Amino acid sequence: MRYGFSQRVRYMKSSAVRDILKVVNQGNVISFAGGLPDESLFPVEAIRQAFDKAITSGNKVLQYGETEGVRELRERLSVRMAQKGLYRKSEDILVTSGSQQAIDLFAKIMFNPGDIILTENPTYLAALQVFDSYETTIVPVDSDEDGMIEEDLEDKINRLKPKCIYVVPTYSNPGGKVWSLERRKKLLELAQKYHVVIFEDDPYGDIQFDNQVSPPSIASMDNNQFVMYTSTFSKTVVPAMRIGWIVGPHQIIRLMAQAKQATDLHTNSISQHALIHLLDDFDLDGHIQIIRKTYLGRMEVMRDILDSVKSDQLSYQIPKGGMFFWVNMPSYVNTTDLLATAVKEGVAYVPGAPFYVSNPQENTMRLNFTNAPPDQIKIGMERLVTVINEKQFESIG
Amino acid sequence: MRYGFSQRVRYMKSSAVRDILKVVNQGNVISFAGGLPDESLFPVEAIRQAFDKAITSGNKVLQYGETEGVRELRERLSVRMAQKGLYRKSEDILVTSGSQQAIDLFAKIMFNPGDIILTENPTYLAALQVFDSYETTIVPVDSDEDGMIEEDLEDKINRLKPKCIYVVPTYSNPGGKVWSLERRKKLLELAQKYHVVIFEDDPYGDIQFDNQVSPPSIASMDNNQFVMYTSTFSKTVVPAMRIGWIVGPHQIIRLMAQAKQATDLHTNSISQHALIHLLDDFDLDGHIQIIRKTYLGRMEVMRDILDSVKSDQLSYQIPKGGMFFWVNMPSYVNTTDLLATAVKEGVAYVPGAPFYVSNPQENTMRLNFTNAPPDQIKIGMERLVTVINEKQFESIG
Repeated sequence: MRYGFSQRVRYMKSSAVRDILKVVNQGNVISFAGGLPDESLFPVEAIRQAFDKAITSGNKVLQYGETEGVRELRERLSVRMAQKGLYRKSEDILVTSGSQQAIDLFAKIMFNPGDIILTENPTYLAALQVFDSYETTIVPVDSDEDGMIEEDLEDKINRLKPKCIYVVPTYSNPGGKVWSLERRKKLLELAQKYHVVIFEDDPYGDIQFDNQVSPPSIASMDNNQFVMYTSTFSKTVVPAMRIGWIVGPHQIIRLMAQAKQATDLHTNSISQHALIHLLDDFDLDGHIQIIRKTYLGRMEVMRDILDSVKSDQLSYQIPKGGMFFWVNMPSYVNTTDLLATAVKEGVAYVPGAPFYVSNPQENTMRLNFTNAPPDQIKIGMERLVTVINEKQFESIG
Repeated sequence: MRYGFSQRVRYMKSSAVRDILKVVNQGNVISFAGGLPDESLFPVEAIRQAFDKAITSGNKVLQYGETEGVRELRERLSVRMAQKGLYRKSEDILVTSGSQQAIDLFAKIMFNPGDIILTENPTYLAALQVFDSYETTIVPVDSDEDGMIEEDLEDKINRLKPKCIYVVPTYSNPGGKVWSLERRKKLLELAQKYHVVIFEDDPYGDIQFDNQVSPPSIASMDNNQFVMYTSTFSKTVVPAMRIGWIVGPHQIIRLMAQAKQATDLHTNSISQHALIHLLDDFDLDGHIQIIRKTYLGRMEVMRDILDSVKSDQLSYQIPKGGMFFWVNMPSYVNTTDLLATAVKEGVAYVPGAPFYVSNPQENTMRLNFTNAPPDQIKIGMERLVTVINEKQFESIG
């Protein structure tokens, strides 16, 4: 039978890259492709105890729960955000099935087909997928290493009347860059001036490498009118729990909760209760220090090998946090084409093109440095350098 | 600031009833409103052990997982379905965050605004909410206690070209009725003839009261071309795990998985792995027998008190399974209006109107008999009978 699907299916991009990367999980390919945290750092025993405590703390925990999320968890989230200068009431928080769901529910209540969303370029691939699935029009804003550039931003706000500006200002995916305080303030100022909602996606905020304090979140400078802020425990505890949260104006959160009710009723509440116990009994902030130190070390291993490659063959910025290098290769290299060769050599990455809204730079790639241990990073990077050098030779030859 | 929301927000009904029922959780109101299983039956120790085993079985379990669901769980689902005559490969199964998400993802890839969906009337409230949120047009089909009536069904398929027929044929919510084998066959025959997809929602199939075998699922009579089948562990294990699944034609499942990737990446995999251990180590089918027996007993307690009310004041069918009585009162009673009085008297129910697609019967109510213990059911039902008798007196006076 031929099935009649919805219009939005056409906008749901299927990915050739994903198919190649599925192969990667087999064999001895070293993968820098995923956005996976290091499994060996998972606080397994603390998680085990937290789940044990949650499950035996009363049968109500195992019953249907509130769509908004377990109240005691939202209270703890409110306290944790306040420690970073982001003061929000627990009633303005929605617990989500990972921060991916926060993006999806926001999009669901916000966007009609054709609505304009401004983003950085490149930006988080899976946010673009969500926005595409709601048939919106995504428009990139000129950016440099400090964030979106004011002139282009104001011009596009003014001219295109966007409904939302989506940003990952802290250790961005894919670039690992950090917006300056000035650019954060300027974005907020323009959003307030033109009445546009900012969606601040902050999954990596805790993964900072320098000992300096990173600039405050954009949300923390707002009076809870213009900024939605979302984050997750996937990078700091474990991804499998699927616990994220979003905070913002009460009217928006309330509608998102209503949408969530029809979507999945509520987020897994065994995990929510376990997280409450984990936050109470386990030194999560101490654990985050260990994660930072470990990832910094791995980033440096990768950086040293990238450094050994001649600068006319690749360039990159040193990430200040997060999980990724964003690498530019010479313009004659197409990293999508190169991937098959790389996988044959036993190393994988994500080609940069799908991270672009438009004008994809085909010569870019994203390298994850958090999932493989240092010795594997070395071997994998040496394989990658071989592939790059061969490519160079080819282009000369 | 005034926010500009999406068109679909207008179709997301907010519920006055929900507000009243929120109050119910406080005080000593006995609630027959929710669709909650009995907490005291939860197999807590088995769940504790299953989670313990899952969490300590290797750090990979705590990492990001496959969107389609954990393979070993899908294999077990395939086996369990085969035991009920529903033969499907594990590749055609998608694990979802509760069966509610299965409905939502299906709707997302299937429906454009204005698409026609045929349903029973009344039917599952939260399915209607999903369909509404995709701006579809829901059209009720005439039904009796055996299922949809052939003539009206064929006429509406023929005339309206629906994209889908949504049914809860086994211990339906709200009515607790069971479609006859003949009506199931007829529905499938018409779906095959006119190329319409059937969505068979089966959350209650395991909760059967008679010792007779209920008719086979509609999906089991199809060659995996025309029927989507969804079920859940929320009623047989615990709701808090949020584990459901859907099976159907591979092309549809594949697109749903793609949509799920943008929605929440994947279902909580700690719960998925725990469920694998639970299915292996715990006698779930024995546990289901206990649930059936307990719920049958409670249904009978409620039935006896309903029986004591004069039949000109209310009528109902005895449920053959599931969790609900569907009660008709005299036409002058509006159960939505009556709810405030009932709550004041210390008892709550769900008014029937929101379960209707159109022509709501305002004199209906849904009573849940699974959540309260028998002595509480008695007290609550006596309160309800008092409210009904007063209403009767009022209407005479």
